[in-house]
Formats: sequence, structure tokens, C-alpha cells
Amino acid sequence: MSRINHQVRLAARPVGQVRPTDWEHTEEPVAEPGDGELLVQVLYLSIDPAMRGWMNAGKSYIPPVEVGEVMRAGAVGRVIASRHPGFAVGDHVSGSLGVQEYCLSDGRGLTKVDPAVASLPTYLGTLGMTGLTAYFGLIDIGRPEPGQTVVVSGAAGAVGSVVGQIAKIMGCRVIGIAGGERKCRLVVEEFGFDAAIDYQTEDVRKALREHAPDGVDVYFDNVGGDVLEAVLDRLARGARIVICGAVSQYNSADPVKGPRNYMSLLVNRASMTGMVVFDYADRYSEGITQLAEWRAAGRLRSLEDVVSGGVAAFPETLLRLFRGENLGKLVLKVADE
Amino acid sequence: MSRINHQVRLAARPVGQVRPTDWEHTEEPVAEPGDGELLVQVLYLSIDPAMRGWMNAGKSYIPPVEVGEVMRAGAVGRVIASRHPGFAVGDHVSGSLGVQEYCLSDGRGLTKVDPAVASLPTYLGTLGMTGLTAYFGLIDIGRPEPGQTVVVSGAAGAVGSVVGQIAKIMGCRVIGIAGGERKCRLVVEEFGFDAAIDYQTEDVRKALREHAPDGVDVYFDNVGGDVLEAVLDRLARGARIVICGAVSQYNSADPVKGPRNYMSLLVNRASMTGMVVFDYADRYSEGITQLAEWRAAGRLRSLEDVVSGGVAAFPETLLRLFRGENLGKLVLKVADE
Repeated sequence: MSRINHQVRLAARPVGQVRPTDWEHTEEPVAEPGDGELLVQVLYLSIDPAMRGWMNAGKSYIPPVEVGEVMRAGAVGRVIASRHPGFAVGDHVSGSLGVQEYCLSDGRGLTKVDPAVASLPTYLGTLGMTGLTAYFGLIDIGRPEPGQTVVVSGAAGAVGSVVGQIAKIMGCRVIGIAGGERKCRLVVEEFGFDAAIDYQTEDVRKALREHAPDGVDVYFDNVGGDVLEAVLDRLARGARIVICGAVSQYNSADPVKGPRNYMSLLVNRASMTGMVVFDYADRYSEGITQLAEWRAAGRLRSLEDVVSGGVAAFPETLLRLFRGENLGKLVLKVADE
Repeated sequence: MSRINHQVRLAARPVGQVRPTDWEHTEEPVAEPGDGELLVQVLYLSIDPAMRGWMNAGKSYIPPVEVGEVMRAGAVGRVIASRHPGFAVGDHVSGSLGVQEYCLSDGRGLTKVDPAVASLPTYLGTLGMTGLTAYFGLIDIGRPEPGQTVVVSGAAGAVGSVVGQIAKIMGCRVIGIAGGERKCRLVVEEFGFDAAIDYQTEDVRKALREHAPDGVDVYFDNVGGDVLEAVLDRLARGARIVICGAVSQYNSADPVKGPRNYMSLLVNRASMTGMVVFDYADRYSEGITQLAEWRAAGRLRSLEDVVSGGVAAFPETLLRLFRGENLGKLVLKVADE
């Protein structure tokens, strides 16, 4: 083979906002698979808020990406060479393939996916880690009951849009919080939320008083910061807050803002619990089966925002995510299917 | 009867630290009990951190004390007149009698207590709301397992000292955080904690690294602020934080400090849950029975810090609590038994 593998590596740990100089663009010849290995051509990369955390040093729920390493990324790709008994040329797989054009793998952590059932980007969204995060976070930690009020931030985003739709399926009243009129319209019209609050132009506290007059039973938080404080002020008794992310804080060079009104947890006998989807690995198939069933029944809509440009466009695409420019799941196309 | 009832009423809502002018000292003739009523002479008042919250306007877990009202307080007293079939002269009762010398009651919310079983102040501490708060907060929300590490702040205080002792009974490793060498010695020598950290002179983060090398499984928080942040940085996976109070923040005129590192809840898949003892009213007898049994077996020590001076001394006694001058349960003696 004389193929070249273009890669994006972490060059420096960012402080605050990620800069172009935090990345190094490298290339190397594509290696041949050895015994028990396969070679995957990367087709689509998943662009996730969590990536910002992986770039930081220090203890977290998975080890940081080291400086000099290929940036970690979920992806789907096609097997183009295989000496692994479990995978054949032409198979499509999803897994942590990294920000590169080709990935040599021993097959561990790879899952076969079927492009006849759903588009490949959907396996990075609703039928991938995104959908599973929404599913387990809402069902296991949020535990909404029919008739309860569920609030979701980042509601037009990959995880938020799925959370809200599952909550609707469960018979809840669902309010999305998103930035901008276009996203808020999407949340109501496309994803079927009962209401949307535009945090850029509305007073979130006031809007919550209107849309959640009896308080918020479940809050699925993707953003942290001021929005988290506003919802804390509106909790119903026994409320459950699912801490999935804090994207408003990730790129801040200032200290993270803690929720000053966390004592609302005491006043309302409420809880705030962190969740990491990887903990549910032994239940992924349960989640995927349920999500695929809802999707097939037309009850769960997928929206992927597929950006082209290949791995070279990764740094800019990640910034798009943090600028909140995507609608639904942000995916970077690396090669034609 | 020609008795005079001296009372302490809320005169103004304090901003920050409570001032003498926030109280009004009043007196009125003691009324005769009508049909179905009884008259209680107050003997001991419970002095609690929660009192500061009751002085604030706004939604909380119970209505605020209104300006002009007798200050709310748990107390034990003796029935001195009764036209209530359930109570006889000479009975001892506990309940919310208020900061006054006499309380006319219809009997609701009163519990008879037996001074032959335990001293009357103990019914405000280990065998009262204090003990029940520790019991249900630790057992129901903290859910410690044998061998796990439990950290308690306000460890020399009324609730904290009971929490730590119950955790020891449950087979946990228990670390107390308290202010000053005298309290820290008490926590270890009198209450049997495995270790104590003096937040006034020690680096709490560093001390936790030493005393909780495998992380903190349960944190029972009475103080909030910097100590909460220090423990958040040291959580074990799946940790449970019980939010019982935030005494470091109650008297601050500045905005309450939110825990900046609350995303440790996500990293460690941990939870932070508020508790209010009143929610366990239908299980009080279970709690009291268990606490009394441990106490009778010598496994649970009570320490009451009984201050004299009558209701006139209430404002100053409350400040003693917020200055952290008490050891164990702070009780104000109002009259001789």
C-alpha cells in the first residue's frame, strides 16, 4: 500500500479557548494489518463537547489525550483490509478511531454497523454514544415519570434533542433550552418539545416560571453556568439533575462557575448526579435496541449536521461546536462512503 | 395565673450576620389552657444552625419565621397545666415550643419524653431532631457500606458527631473535619472517629489525600464553602454527598459560594443530595428506637453543651453557635427541671 494517513495530533494543552496552534497536522504511511488486525478507512468523525475535556491534563473519567498523540474521536469507517477473523473487507464499523484517515485496529472496541438500517452518521448520533448518553442519563439518573416536567439544556444539540424526544415518549412535559431562534424552533417543530427557551434573548428564570409553573422534576444539564443556576431556582420537590456536561464552562480560562444556589438541593430534597455513558457498556445493546425501535417507529428523529473538509477541517469544526453553530449531531466527513 | 411569659421575637430580617437589633424581647401574661389545650413550661431550647435560614424570607423547606413572631425553636418542657386528655401535669414533652418561657399548645407536634431514660437535653440532641437528621441523612442518602470512607464536616457539632459515630457502628473508616485542636481531639477521643482534620490550621485537601487515600465514598456536609470544594476534589467513584447544611455560608452578606468543582460529580459518577429530616416523620420512631438502643449499649455518646441565661440569652447563644464555640449539641437552659 502507498496510502498516506493524514492525522491531527494534540500539540499543546489549551488554556481556555482551543487555538490552531494546539494542533499538529501530521502524515505517515498507512501500515498493513498484521495477523489479527484490520485496517479501517475513516468515513465520519463524531465531534463532541467531551473532546475539550480530553485535551486537559489531570484525572477525569478517561485518561487525557497525551501531547503528541492522535486526537481521540469516535468515528465510523469501512474495513479496507483485514487479517482479523471477525471483520471482512467492506464491513462498516464504529469505534474510537481517532482524528485520522486510517486506523489500524485489533478489533477491540469496534462494533459493526449496517448502513442499510440507518445512515452512517446516525451511528455516531442517535444510534451511537450520543443516543446512549441520552437514554441512560434520562432513564437511569433522571427517572422521569409520566406527567412530570423535564427540562433539557443544549436542546438542539446531539444529546439534548434525543433526551427531549425520549422524555416525550415517556409522557413528560418537555422544555428545551437552546441558543437562538432557529434552534428553538427546531426543538419544538422538529423534535416535538412542548416549549423552548432561548437563553440568548429570554430571561431563563422568568420563562421557566411560565413554562414550568409546578417546578422542574428532571433537569438534564449539558451546559452548566447561568442556565444551571436558573433551573436550580425552579426545582420541584424531589427533583433529579443529571450532570452530563458543562459546555458553557469548558473553554473558559477563568475558574469554573459553581452553582451558587446549590442549597436549592436541600430546600427541594433534590439530587445532582454525574453520568458517564461508558459505565453502561454492558447495557449498550439494550439501549441501542430501544433507540432503533423508537427510530423505526418514527418516534425518534435524528438530525446530523455533516460538515465536509476531511481531517484538516477538524480544528475549525470543533470550534463550530463550541460556538454553538451546529443543529443536531455534528459530524465531520472524512471520505466518501 | 399571674405568670409572665418572656419571649424573643424576630424584629427584622438580618442581612449577613445576625445583630442584636434583629430581635425584640417581649413579655405577656401566660394564658390559661382552654379545652383540649395544655400549658408547657419551657426548660431547654435547641440552638440550631437551621435557625439562620428560618429568619430569611423566601421559599424554603418550611415557611420563614415572620417579623413580629416568636422565634421558632425546638425545645423540651414540662406540662404545668392541662385540659388535654393526652397530657398530664408533670409530663415532659419535646416539640417546637419557640423562644419563650411558656407555650400554650393543642398537643399537635408534641412528643412525650422520659427523663429517667435520658437527660432532657439529650432529647434535643442524640434522641431528637439532631440524631434523626444524622441517622436518616447517613443511612438513607449516604448509604455507606462497611469498609468505605465517610467524611463529616462540623464533626464536633450536634449532627456531625452522631453521623460519625453511626458510620463507625456501620464499619466505616470515618474522618471528621472541625475547627480547632480542641474539637479535633474530641472527635477522635470522645466520638471515636479514625481521624480529624482541623480546617483552621491544616490544608484540608492535603489532609484528605493522607487520610482518604482511596477517596471519599460518603461526605456528610454541614458547612459548604471551601471544605465542600476540598472534598469534591477527593471523591471516590460513585460517591454520595449528603447536603445537610452550609453553615459557613449562612451569615454571609456576599452571594453564597457555589462549588466550582461540582463537575467532579461527573468525573466520579457521584451524587449530591439535599435532605430535610421532617420528610422522615413517619419513620421517626424507627430512628429513635435505633438511636436509643445504640445509646443504651454504650455505642453512641451524647454531648450537650448546655448554656444558662434563659430566653434573654438566646441572641448571644445563637451567635456562639455561628462562631463555632460549642462542643456537641448547643442547648440553652430556660428554667430548672
